[in-house]
This record gives sequence, C-alpha cells and structure tokens, in this order.
Amino acid sequence: MEILEKLKQIVGPAHVLTGDMAAGYGRDWTGAYGSAPLAVLRPGTRDEAAAILRLAHDARLPVVPVAGNTGLAGGTFAEGALMISVERMNRIRDIRPGARVAVVEAGVILSALHDAAEAQGLIFPLFFGARGSAMIGGVLSTNAGGSNVLRYGNTRALCLGLEVVLPDGRVMDLMGALHKDNTGYDLKDLFIGAEGTLGLITAAVLKLMPKPRAHATAMVAVPALPDALMLLNRLQDETGGAVEAFEYMPADYMARLAACRPDLRPPFATPHAVNILVEVGATAPRDATPLPDGSLPVVTHLEETLAAMMADGAVLDAVVARSEAQRAEIWERREAAAEITFSRGPIVDSDIALPLDGVVPFLERMQVLLPRIDPGAETITVGHLGDGNLHYAVWPSRDDAALKDAIRETVEDVVAELGGSFSAEHGIGLSKKSTMARRKDPVALAVMAQIKAALDPQGIMNPGKLLPE
Amino acid sequence: MEILEKLKQIVGPAHVLTGDMAAGYGRDWTGAYGSAPLAVLRPGTRDEAAAILRLAHDARLPVVPVAGNTGLAGGTFAEGALMISVERMNRIRDIRPGARVAVVEAGVILSALHDAAEAQGLIFPLFFGARGSAMIGGVLSTNAGGSNVLRYGNTRALCLGLEVVLPDGRVMDLMGALHKDNTGYDLKDLFIGAEGTLGLITAAVLKLMPKPRAHATAMVAVPALPDALMLLNRLQDETGGAVEAFEYMPADYMARLAACRPDLRPPFATPHAVNILVEVGATAPRDATPLPDGSLPVVTHLEETLAAMMADGAVLDAVVARSEAQRAEIWERREAAAEITFSRGPIVDSDIALPLDGVVPFLERMQVLLPRIDPGAETITVGHLGDGNLHYAVWPSRDDAALKDAIRETVEDVVAELGGSFSAEHGIGLSKKSTMARRKDPVALAVMAQIKAALDPQGIMNPGKLLPE
Repeated sequence: MEILEKLKQIVGPAHVLTGDMAAGYGRDWTGAYGSAPLAVLRPGTRDEAAAILRLAHDARLPVVPVAGNTGLAGGTFAEGALMISVERMNRIRDIRPGARVAVVEAGVILSALHDAAEAQGLIFPLFFGARGSAMIGGVLSTNAGGSNVLRYGNTRALCLGLEVVLPDGRVMDLMGALHKDNTGYDLKDLFIGAEGTLGLITAAVLKLMPKPRAHATAMVAVPALPDALMLLNRLQDETGGAVEAFEYMPADYMARLAACRPDLRPPFATPHAVNILVEVGATAPRDATPLPDGSLPVVTHLEETLAAMMADGAVLDAVVARSEAQRAEIWERREAAAEITFSRGPIVDSDIALPLDGVVPFLERMQVLLPRIDPGAETITVGHLGDGNLHYAVWPSRDDAALKDAIRETVEDVVAELGGSFSAEHGIGLSKKSTMARRKDPVALAVMAQIKAALDPQGIMNPGKLLPE
Repeated sequence: MEILEKLKQIVGPAHVLTGDMAAGYGRDWTGAYGSAPLAVLRPGTRDEAAAILRLAHDARLPVVPVAGNTGLAGGTFAEGALMISVERMNRIRDIRPGARVAVVEAGVILSALHDAAEAQGLIFPLFFGARGSAMIGGVLSTNAGGSNVLRYGNTRALCLGLEVVLPDGRVMDLMGALHKDNTGYDLKDLFIGAEGTLGLITAAVLKLMPKPRAHATAMVAVPALPDALMLLNRLQDETGGAVEAFEYMPADYMARLAACRPDLRPPFATPHAVNILVEVGATAPRDATPLPDGSLPVVTHLEETLAAMMADGAVLDAVVARSEAQRAEIWERREAAAEITFSRGPIVDSDIALPLDGVVPFLERMQVLLPRIDPGAETITVGHLGDGNLHYAVWPSRDDAALKDAIRETVEDVVAELGGSFSAEHGIGLSKKSTMARRKDPVALAVMAQIKAALDPQGIMNPGKLLPE
C-alpha cells in the first residue's frame, strides 16, 4: 500500500507494524474489545507523530492513539485504523526538584516516573494497579484516578502543561510549568480526558509532591459503612487532611479474594462485612520523627484513633502495618481487584461516583432491586470510598443480554437519582457510549459534538469513542 | 425600541435599565474602560437569562455579562451592547456541610458566601481585596486567584459543578457535586475563565474546606528574595504544606503605602527591602490546642522557624500577630494594593506568573532594562510570591504611548524568556488582547478561535474580549 510506504519514510520501516506484530496491539485484556488495526506506527518524536497525522488527515484515515493499553473501556479499539503507539516517546526530559515538576513524554511508563521522582525525594502521587504498564499519554487522555485522588486529586489536578498534536498535524504547545495562568480558554483540561478524540498528547509537565516521610497503613473492620465514613472524617480532621487512601473492600470482595488468591492471608481471623484500607501520609517531620519508644507519631496517632473507636464499638478489628512488607501485603489485597473481578464472566461492571452521603443509599437500594431482576446474581464491590467512587460489579446468573441491560439500567437509575456519575474514572470509550447518550445532559452532549466537529471536522481521531452517534 | 419592550416582558420593566441607571454599569473603576451599554438587564432566574439570550441570539445583539464589575482587564466593556447583570440571581441555594459543598447562584457576593460557610464551621477559601463586591459569576468567569491559591488552588480548583446559558439560550446542566467524573470532555473548565465569551454562568457547585482552627500570621523582613523562598520552603516542609499565604511587599510598595495610607502603621522601625506577609493555617487540633503557657503550637512553630532563621541572618525582623486585630492590621497593608497602585497614573501594570526560580531573575533583569528605556520610571511591586505571581507595575516618567508600549514589551520579553505567563490571574479582557496575539502559542489561539466559532457562531457573547481579532 502506498500509504504504508509513506509512513515507513516517516518513522522508519521497523516502526510500521502489520500482521501478527500489529495484532498484538489490537488485543484487549478485558477480552471485550479486540480489533485488527490496519497498521501500528511507533513514532520516536513529536515531529514524526505530527507527520503521521498530516498524512492521515490528507488521506482521511482513522487514527487511534495507544499508550500502555491498560484501559477498561475499549478506548483503543482500532479496527481498520492506523494505531499510533507512543511507546518510543518515552523520555523523562527533565525533573526540576526546585520547581517540583517533571517534563515527560507520552510513552513514559507511570512506574518509571514514580522511580525518577523518588530518586529526588519527591513523588508523582498517582497510583493504581496497572502502573507498571500504563503510560503517561493514556493516563492523561483518560484523566486516570486511582487510590490517592483523595489527597492529591486525579490526573487533571497533577498536570501543569501539555503538548498536543492536533488531528491535522499542527502542534499545540501548552508546556508551561506555572501554577497560575489565565491566558485564554483552558485548552489543557479540554484535551485531558478527551480519550484521544481531539488530538494526540505527546508530552506533559507534571506536578511532583514532597514524599511523605512515613506512612501509617491499616486494614480496619467496622460494623457498617457509616462507621467507615465516621472514621474517615475523624482522621481527616485530626491529621489536617493527610489521609491518602481510604479503600472499601466489603465481604463479597474479601470472599472472592480468598477464593482466587489463597496466597494472600486474610487480614482478620473472622470475616467482616465492611473492611477498609486506610493510609495516612506524614509530610511534616514531627509526624515521622520516632518517639522515645521507637514508634512513629503518625502510626501512634492512627492507632489511638482506632483504639478510641474500638472502645465505642465503631471499629471491630484493625491491623496496623509495622513494616513496609506488611504495608505491601495490605495493598496487595486491594490491587488484586481487576484480576479477581474480570477473571469471571459474564459480568456487568461499573465505575460510579456518588456524593459521599449517597454511597450507603446506593448500596441499600441495589440490595433491594437486584434480587428482583435476578435472584441468582452475585456482586463484587470495591472502591475508593473517600472519593465516593465504587466499582460495583454484578455477575448475573446467566449470560443474557437483556438481563445484563436490565441490571445496568437499574444501576444507572439509582446513580442518577442520587446525583452520581456513571463513569468516575475509567472514561467512556466504547463501553459507556450508550450510557452517555441516555444519561448525560443533552446540551452538554451537543456542545461536545460541536467541539469535536470544530477541532476534528473529518472525524479521524479515535473515531467512534466517547461521543454517542 | 421593540427589543426593549420584549426584554421588559421577560424580566419586568423595573429590570431593564437605560439612561443614567445603565450608565453606572458602564463605569469602570480603573477609569480605562468606560462604556455606554444599550441597556442593562437584571434577570431574576436562569430561565429569564435564557430567554434574554434567545432573544439576543435571534436579533444578533451583542451581550456582555456583568457580575460584581471588579475586574481589572476591561472584561465588561459594553458599548452599545445588552449587559446582563447577574446581581438578582443571588441565592445561596444550599450549603451541605456533610458533602462540603455550596450550591450558589452567579450573583452571590463572595463575602456573603464566606459568611455562610463560616456559619457551618467551613470556609470557601478564595480571598482577595474586592471580596465585598465581587460576585461568583465573575469570579468563575475570570478564574480568580487571590491570596490563598498557594494552599487551596484558584477558582477552577474550587468548582465542582456549573450551570451555563449558552449563546443561543440553551441551558447546560453540569451541576454535579462529585470529586470524580469522567463523562466526556471537561466542559466545566472550558467555561471557567472564558470571561463570558462562550456563555453566561448562572450557578455553581463550589467546594468548601474545613475552617483552620487557628492562624499564625507574621510580617517578616528578610535581606533578599532568596531568603524569602528559603523561608517558604522551610515552612512548607515543617507544616506539611499548611502555608496559606506568602505575600511579597518590597520597599517600593511599602514606601507608597506609607505615603498613601498614613493611617496604617509601618510594620518595622526601619524600612526593609523585602517584606513578606506569611500565614500558616492550623487544621489539625494539635496545632491549635493551647500549650501550658497559653500559646498556640502553630504560632510557636512559626516563631521558632523565624528565630532560627534570624540567628542565621536570613531573617532581619519579624512581627507575629498576637490577636485577630493584629492579624487584620497585617492584612490591611497587603489589601491596599489596588488602591495605592491605581491611584496614580500613568501606569503600566502587569499580572505575571513565573516559575518560582524565575522571580529573582525577572526582577534583576528589569532593574537593568527599565532605566535604559526610561531612567525616570518608578516601580511598585506586590505579589503572591508563593505562586510566582507578581503585580509588577511601572509609573513611567511621562504619559507617552510609545514609551508605555516599550516598557510593556520589555516586561513581556523577560517573562517569555523565563517561561512565564503574561496574565496570571486577571485575565485578558480588552487590556491584554494585543499581548495574546503576540505572545500566546499561535496554534492554541487558532484552537480557541475554532471553539468560539463553534459555540457562538454569531459572535454575540462578550464580543471583542479575550480573543485577538
């Protein structure tokens, strides 16, 4: 094909992949969104990426950006399209400890940025299970969340500057490292979370934070969710907002975890209905300077709060990590979530956000409504409780499209009634397009379509994703 | 006029102002951007505002939104246009302490929201001098900054949800109260800071924060700016990031303050080159629980840091507030900034942001370059040093347009060389349009124009603002 020859001239023959090599990129680990891309291109520079987009624009060829390919929403489905993989644009261009910023290319793997920041005594505070594969370009394009949003915000809150190749190959330079900049429309935030439908993110300026001097981490069992929210509020007040993670693992999750991962010890001698992973970060020296008995104030503080609540019956059991190994063990139970949820099908998964006072009503209503639709259905729930973000998934009793639709519809109804979101952190991709059409404010949808048409009039950038037809 | 009759039917005759009544709205307190609006409309509801915009859209009449009219960039210049004042849409619809959000209309005055939040033991942490007049609609449309951005972020970071009337009168409902929501393009942030050129903001969901239990506030004199930055870093590290304000008032500012406001006592017996207002907020109880001697730990901590730096010669003098009255006195010196700067002309003002490590080089270069252009020029500088945001203003020796342009150009050159922004928090309006045209990334400007054309094809919303022709 003539177009492939031209592409080889741009990126070199070794970086225009077809056949089996390309097929690997079309495989999707959820198993739901496999595709056969026309070719996979691996530009080494922004300018090569821009040349690819100019060519695709002139030829009106669809282009699908791909980074670490760890998304859950089918955002990289690329049947018959050119895939642009950013994997070779993987330089950490600069770490400026004084300004607390990192300048990175889109192909940098999240955990590589973690390591580079730590080497300077800093952190890039975005953590989730797939951090060893996820790349910055995908993280930005999906506005990824994770376990530390509670303290540090999502990806959007951590990005100061952006470089984007537009659908026609023009390069937009918004690579500032400033905390204040009111020079026109906020284009940066428009491209963050746009799932590659408006352009290709090629580089970014990201915020770094001081590395907490110590952590206090615990698994806590409480009688019911309101006790968990009380624990969260109490710890936030007493630490001045230093709670970094507050993760919810109810009984259904713990049971499935025990079945799938017998290598992980159960945290408590007896199972509990509501299990919480809580982590507090000690940023100030006084919280991390060992006391005369060798204990750390941040840990002592967490223990005292837990002991006081235990005396009131608001905490049933708790295990506080005494070492990094114990802390890692606690986190392993949480990070197995995707593995143990998606290893069984059929599944109706969700990624919902609720106002904090809507979490309990949601679960209570589903407990009534789900058995009416499917008495044999089982659930598995895990979530970032501190953000009101639940991954509530249902395994229906049979693989029936109408039944799955009914379950999905009910979840969405309850979420809408409670003022929640049907996509908290995973995005829309292909998987939630019909929900977008039915649930998002219609004027907002129309405005999104107007913006898409203005910036990508030929509709070549990641076609068919995010926006309903 | 027929159109005024129709408008009277929408909002009632008492709320269609013309003549002298309208003229007041066209007056601009900087004195630079006075205009004569065709009429001023004061809708009482979102639906009235939408009806006005439908009418204006059909008649292709220009519409200029106005809220508290405290902007500094000419953003409400409305010659021959319909002005929509949001002042009557001034209800605080809801304060939800549990979810820590306030649901407010665009005409709520910032200080009224402060009071309502405080009544619940919470704060809306956006503070600047004009807070007694500025309204939420303007605050959002300009993405206002102020003195506490260092700890809490600018307006954008404090807004969870938005309601917007589009240029054709459609209403877009993005009034979520969620901390995570990845349902399509980030339209909220597109309208925040758009200066009314894309639509009229009518309501918002805003974040509230726990009220600090106590503050430690001081005026500090240091030998030079690097000592100030050392003080900032030290305090941030030791308090775990609890510095709420870090304001810079150099000798030129203090001299002008003494001349204009003899009622305010000078903070120190002798003048100093670099004066800093620093404030630390105590959020955790242990920082605000009185010690046996009655002092507060947060104050003691600040005093100890200052004493240690004084011993090293890095702090020359310091006054720590011992009461709310003393704290207020310290703040008064800072909040007189606009008054004392703009009471003298001609002036070339600026609102620049620099990377933190660019502040000293900027001032050093201007000290060399300004006398070359205008040996008789005087300067007055004040700024949010913790954000790298300086209001560096020049009083040239004569009122000469070419001279003022040369000064402006030099400031912009130095800012650009240092990777800074020519508008940190005041926005573009009319005042910085030519700078936008010359200094902003041209591709970003083209994308902004594409978005404007897509959402306001007739160009009726706040025409002539923000975007260069």
